[in-house]
This record gives sequence, C-alpha cells and structure tokens, in this order.
Amino acid sequence: MGKNDLLFDYNNMMADVIGDNGITNEELNSYMDKAKLAHYNFEKKKGYNMMEWTKLPYEQDSVAQEIEAFAKNVRQNFDYFVVLGIGGSALGASVIFDALCHYNHNLLSKDKRNAPIFFVEDNVDPDRMNALLDVVDIKKTMFNVVTKSGKTTETLAQFLIVYKLLKRALGEEEANKHIVFTTDRKKGDLLQVAKQKNIKCFYIPEGVGGRYSVLSPVGLLPASVLGVDIRDMLMGARDMEERCKNFESNPAVMKAVLEFISYNKGLKINVMMPYSQSLKSFSSWYAQLMGESLGKRLSLDNEVVNVGITPVSALGVTDQHSQQQLYIEGPNDKTITFITVSNTKTDIITPSNSLNIKELDYISNVNLGKLIYVENTATRYALSVNGRMNNTIIIPQVNAYYLGQLFTMCMYEIVYLGEMFNINAFDQPGVEDGKIATFAMLNKSGYEDRLECIEMFTVLTKYIV
Amino acid sequence: MGKNDLLFDYNNMMADVIGDNGITNEELNSYMDKAKLAHYNFEKKKGYNMMEWTKLPYEQDSVAQEIEAFAKNVRQNFDYFVVLGIGGSALGASVIFDALCHYNHNLLSKDKRNAPIFFVEDNVDPDRMNALLDVVDIKKTMFNVVTKSGKTTETLAQFLIVYKLLKRALGEEEANKHIVFTTDRKKGDLLQVAKQKNIKCFYIPEGVGGRYSVLSPVGLLPASVLGVDIRDMLMGARDMEERCKNFESNPAVMKAVLEFISYNKGLKINVMMPYSQSLKSFSSWYAQLMGESLGKRLSLDNEVVNVGITPVSALGVTDQHSQQQLYIEGPNDKTITFITVSNTKTDIITPSNSLNIKELDYISNVNLGKLIYVENTATRYALSVNGRMNNTIIIPQVNAYYLGQLFTMCMYEIVYLGEMFNINAFDQPGVEDGKIATFAMLNKSGYEDRLECIEMFTVLTKYIV
Repeated sequence: MGKNDLLFDYNNMMADVIGDNGITNEELNSYMDKAKLAHYNFEKKKGYNMMEWTKLPYEQDSVAQEIEAFAKNVRQNFDYFVVLGIGGSALGASVIFDALCHYNHNLLSKDKRNAPIFFVEDNVDPDRMNALLDVVDIKKTMFNVVTKSGKTTETLAQFLIVYKLLKRALGEEEANKHIVFTTDRKKGDLLQVAKQKNIKCFYIPEGVGGRYSVLSPVGLLPASVLGVDIRDMLMGARDMEERCKNFESNPAVMKAVLEFISYNKGLKINVMMPYSQSLKSFSSWYAQLMGESLGKRLSLDNEVVNVGITPVSALGVTDQHSQQQLYIEGPNDKTITFITVSNTKTDIITPSNSLNIKELDYISNVNLGKLIYVENTATRYALSVNGRMNNTIIIPQVNAYYLGQLFTMCMYEIVYLGEMFNINAFDQPGVEDGKIATFAMLNKSGYEDRLECIEMFTVLTKYIV
Repeated sequence: MGKNDLLFDYNNMMADVIGDNGITNEELNSYMDKAKLAHYNFEKKKGYNMMEWTKLPYEQDSVAQEIEAFAKNVRQNFDYFVVLGIGGSALGASVIFDALCHYNHNLLSKDKRNAPIFFVEDNVDPDRMNALLDVVDIKKTMFNVVTKSGKTTETLAQFLIVYKLLKRALGEEEANKHIVFTTDRKKGDLLQVAKQKNIKCFYIPEGVGGRYSVLSPVGLLPASVLGVDIRDMLMGARDMEERCKNFESNPAVMKAVLEFISYNKGLKINVMMPYSQSLKSFSSWYAQLMGESLGKRLSLDNEVVNVGITPVSALGVTDQHSQQQLYIEGPNDKTITFITVSNTKTDIITPSNSLNIKELDYISNVNLGKLIYVENTATRYALSVNGRMNNTIIIPQVNAYYLGQLFTMCMYEIVYLGEMFNINAFDQPGVEDGKIATFAMLNKSGYEDRLECIEMFTVLTKYIV
C-alpha cells in the first residue's frame, strides 16, 4: 500500500467550484504562511511533552509483542472482554470494534466471531451496568480497566463493583487474573492496586493524553483481543506520519487550514459524516478530539478567546433523512466532512423487478455498495449547488491500515488547528469545576466548603414549570 | 399520575441566576406576546392539515386494538422483528426500544427478553445488511417495512432484498405473512404491492409527517411487539396535550421561547444531553425533529431567512469526558438541554473500600443511581457558574407514560418554534436536490438531463491532496 492512497478532496470548499460562499484562492493563499508555521511548529515539538504520542507508531515493537501474547491468551481462555473506561479511554476501542468487526459481532456464534464477546462500558448508568452483568458470565470475562490518571471516578466505581463480584465468584487470587489495567506508568490509584494485587498492567506513556491514546495500549489491547492486526494499524499511522512531515500533499494540514478559514468566516460547526455504518463511532472519537482539544477559553498568551469548533456527528445515508435539510437550507454556519469508502467489505444486490411495478425499475439490480456511493455523491452535489462548503476524505476500504491513517490524519489536523488558534490542544481545564462539584457532593475530603455554593445553583425553584 | 409531574427547569437560562449571559426578565417578557401568538396559532391549527398528528393520542382506540392483536401474534410466532425504515420511519422505534427494553435485549435468553430479537435497519450499507442476514433466521422473522410515501429508495431496496429471500425460503404465500407495511392509506408504491400480494398494512394518516409519526403505527407497532403498553404511552401524550392547551405551566412553549430568544442572541446550537443511557436515541429522534422542521431557507412570507437551530446529541455522564470542555470554554453559541431522570429502573452500589486506599473512600458505598444524579447536578452547576445557558427536563422515570409526555412536549416545542420563526415546520424542500441526483445517477427515467450537471461537481480533480 502506498502513501498517497488516502485522498482529501476539497473541491467543494472552493469559490470557483461552489460559488461565493466558498474560499477563494487568494483567501487560501493569505493563510498559507500561518499554515506553514503551524506545520513547522508541530514538526519541531513532535515527540516531546504532550506530543509524545507521535512516537507511538514507531516505538512499540516490544509493547505490541506483549499485547499480542496477552491478547492470544484472552482469546483462548475468555468468552467476554469488557473495557471499563470513559472518554479517551473508551472511544478508541469502540471505533476499532465497530470499524473492524462484524456489525452484529456479539450475536454471532463463537466460531464465527472468532473473538470474545466485546463491550465498552463508558457510562455509570446503573441500568446499563446491571444489563451488562445480566449477559456476561463473569467467570469467563476479562475486564480491561482503562484510565490514564488512574483516578477517574466513573471507571474506578465500575472497577470496584466488578472486582467485588469477581472475588466473590472466583476468590481473590483468581479474580486478579480477570483484570488488566491500562494506566500511567508512574502515578494514580490504579497503579497502587496493581502492585498490591499483582494485577497485569499495560502502560500509557506520560506524554500521551486520553484523546491521543488510541494507538497506545488503550486501543491496541482491545484491538488485538478482537483479532485486529495491530501492526497494520501502526503501519497505517506511520505512513500518514511520514506523509505529514511534508507540508505539500499533506491532507491534515490542508483540512486544518480550510476549517480555520471557515471558522474565521463564521462557520463554527463541523459535521463529520462518514458514508459507512462501520465508521459511525469514528465520528464520536473525532468529536472528542476536536471538541476537547480546541474548545478553549484562553490563548497561549493568556488572552480570553473562547474559541472552538463544535463537532457534530452524522452518518450517511441515514442522516440524509434527518439532518440534510438543515445542512442545505439552515444557517450557513457549518462545514461538512464526508468519509467516502471506495470498497465496502461485502455487497448485496437488489433483485430485478419481480413486482412488475414500473416505478421500482430504478432500484432493480442495484448493489447496495453502489447505492450508498451514489447517495454520497448526490449529497455532496446537493450541498455544493446550494453553496454549502463540504470536503471529503476518501479511503479505499475500512481496514486496520486505513484506520491507522485516519486516526493519525485527524490527530495531526487538530494539532495544526491548535497551533493556528494559538491554544493548548492537550489540556482540558474547563472540566475542573464539574469534577470539584462531584467530589464535594460525594463528600470527598477537602471539598466540604464547595457544597454551599453548589446548592445555590441547584435548589432554585423560581423558574420551573 | 398527575399532569404536572414532568418539570421543566429553566433557572440556568436566566440572568439573575447565571449572570450577564443569561436572559433577563425584561427580555423574556418582551417575547411573551410572540410566544402567546405562537401558542394561539397552534391551538387554532391543531388537528388540520399536517397537524393531524395531534389527534393521534385521542383517536386510536381501534387502531391500538388492531396493533395489539397483531403484535401478540408476532410475539408468539416470530423470534425476530426487523424494522426496515429510515429517518422518521426508524428513529421512533429506536427510541422506544432503547428507552423501554433491557440495554442488552438481543443478548438475553428468549424467556428473559419476552419479546422477539429486535432490529431497526436504517441504512443501506451492504455490510450492515449482510450482518443482519447473518444473525436472523429469516423463516422466523417479521419484517416491518415503514415508509409514509411508500417510495423511499433505501427502504424499498431493503424490502426487495428481503422479500426475495423470504420467497426463496418459504414460497410466496408464506413470505407475504412475514411482511407488514406501515404506510400512507392512499398512495405510494407499497400500497400497490400490498394489494397485489395481500400483505398486512397499518396506515399513517395523511397529516402525519415522518418526524411527527412516532405515536402512529410507525412507533406503536414496534412498541407493542416489544411488550410496551402503548395505551400508557398514548395516555402520557394525551396528558401533555391537555397541559399544553394552556399557555401557563406549559413546558413546551416555555422551552420554545427560551430557545428562540437564545437563537436571536446568537446561540444557534442546542445540545440535547440526557443523563440516562436509555435516552441516547431520544436525542437522535429530537435532532431530526428540530433539524428538519426548523432548518428552512424561506419564511412563510417567501423571504430568504436561512434559519434553523443545529441540534447536537450528547449523553451524560459519558460526554462530560468528551464535550463538556467545549461547552464550558468554547464559543458561547449553544444552549444545553439536560434530561434528568429522578429514578433509575435498577441500581447497584459500589462496595465499601475493600482496597484500603484512602483516595477511593469517596466512591465507596455509592449507588450508581446517585452517582449519575450527582454528576448531572455537577455539570449543570459547572455550566452555570461559567455563564453557559442550560435547562433541564425532569421526569420521574423512563417508562411508556413519560416517553409519551416527552415525545409530545418536544413536538409541541418545535411547532411553537416554527411559528416564532415564521416557517413551515412540516416540509423538507431542501432534500429534493439530493433525491433528484440519486435518481439521475441510478438512471431513473425522467432524470437523464441532470447527469451532466452532477458530473460537473463530482469529477473535479483540481483540489485534491
């Protein structure tokens, strides 16, 4: 597979294609210095501090080996594999599962699915937690507890619940063999537990934040358990990294500068709309990456900027029947990014018109693979003739290799955008108030004095109908 | 159950609660005439033309009886029930399934699930279609083909495929008993097929558009097959309708006017964020309702207005770890609507701190039902102290009755908003260009001359990297 087989088509962003709403060549050129600087800066910073994740595709040979050996054991000896995590600790695993496994994996017979039944539990809703426990045989389940900080409230609560159940069912020594941690090498409560109980750990390098961690053991371990060739995924990532070393023919920097220009023109929403059911979760992963990385109050110069592109997840063709009306006729405040997959994994053809209804002729003898492609093209066309900016990432197929390319392209895009916005794309200071309030209401020691202030906001009855 | 037990809390929309970003009482008062007019107009138009859906909660006694009888037969004689539909023909069934059934319904044993294995197939991706056929026994499957127009390309393509398979497996006469149509009473290709083949039909009244059809057989048939008490759902809808006859204490009109004011202040995005896993699909249903109803180019006076609120779906607590950062620190361009559920269906408690780690004390002996509530409160608080407008719909529990209330409240809200925006909330003219392009590319007769124009937009290679 060559380097240039993922394509980024931005014809429909340009004024000479879609008319006045588009970006002119002059406009694009006027932003090129900024884009080049963003590219230059990232090249310089790559590999250091919170950009250590750029090294993951290159430096994980022995980690990958360890993961593969562990995963092989899981595949042989466990019927269920459950990821306990939330946010960046869950989304990558969900993408890999949905993109690379059978759409109804968990309903297949054991020999057909050829991997454990798989769950990513990324919420603390008790009804969902109980629903999980209703369908897994805990004695045959491996739980992968994933938290970079080792402190995530939701994940630790889930862990405490299943650990108690495991101990009750199997005794402590055996229970410890049903748990695997993915966490920071040096800090966090989970590490303490691991040492105490001799629980297997995979490590997330220090400079790999949650939303940039999919190519670390956070994503690789679930992938390998599912039978995904993680070397292929890392190779895809590497090929995209190599491609992005150059400024020219760099799809990530091109998408970044176009989204940045659009933002400055007032289009502050980006819709990610893959035309492949298997990439539905990819939009959610991208939404976290974009939302949390770019949504920032302060610039690097400490100015209040309140910037950020609001990500919206959509799915082709389904959301043509839900959101397309808004995208075409509503406010011109969004760009749409399609992902077009040239080849579906399978295909199925409609029969010739056995019903003898003339109006159905046009959908006789049509491959659904062709239909989804035609509708994708039709939607791109419809947006464009209506002057709505859209761009398309084209990949030959959904497999581990191209998923590696997609992940990397998107992470690079967001870092370039972070550079252009002049913000820190790797922190999330805005979630602190909520965390503190949660701690206070759960009576965590040290947060007592916050309770009164929280109650002021939450017991108001003035404006209620 | 009383009328007023669904509450709408809008404290955190108001300036005297969250500060300058909020809405002042004067502002709210200045919009009250507009809100009253919207309410008055809708009361006047209700039941007529495309507002016939408001009669559904009142006039379906015999339809409900027919549905229940049919559903009983399905529950007894079929192991699988598959909805073939898209957009408004699919989303309602998905909401009902996710809200009212076990989260892992399809993985439960037959006696525990007490209803057929259930799928809503709302895409034409061939990999998904094949994945369905891999896991259902077609001889034990009832297919519910849902399309108001009877002409929806995607749904008809799916129908043609399964109908051929059914005929091959069972012979034509028996195959016809595995299909049930939900469609318009008077028009559409499906009706023709039904007559030809003697296939059972349920009807969607003429003045009930797709996104307003959940309380028609579109939603009621799947609900009843799943064992949901559809009378309860209709009763909830009726109680909300009665409540909305008044302008006072009307949660729908209050939410509508607040969103309308926010829109005029530049907040053109609304995030729907239920704190209940079971309502995740509800956000998608609401997104269609809001996006397609309000996203309009022309006003009723034929002025170009390009209005519309962009709906975003989020889920608590999960998306606290994905989108909260953006909601708090990003551009102040969105309102957040929470759905708070006072009582989860089940609960589960974390053990006391058996690990002897002091830092974990605060999540010892905590019910997850409490945890999700605390995090909901913490997020409302965090948004509010940061001056971000948010409001909350509070329901006692997720059941058929309150789902009926929720559906109705939201449909009313959107119609009130349509009145205030002065647009047609019941059409979708913007999807025509895409439909025509699809027909042209599939060589449907009558669309030949469009092909050249479409190709102009889709074969451009100038701007590709």
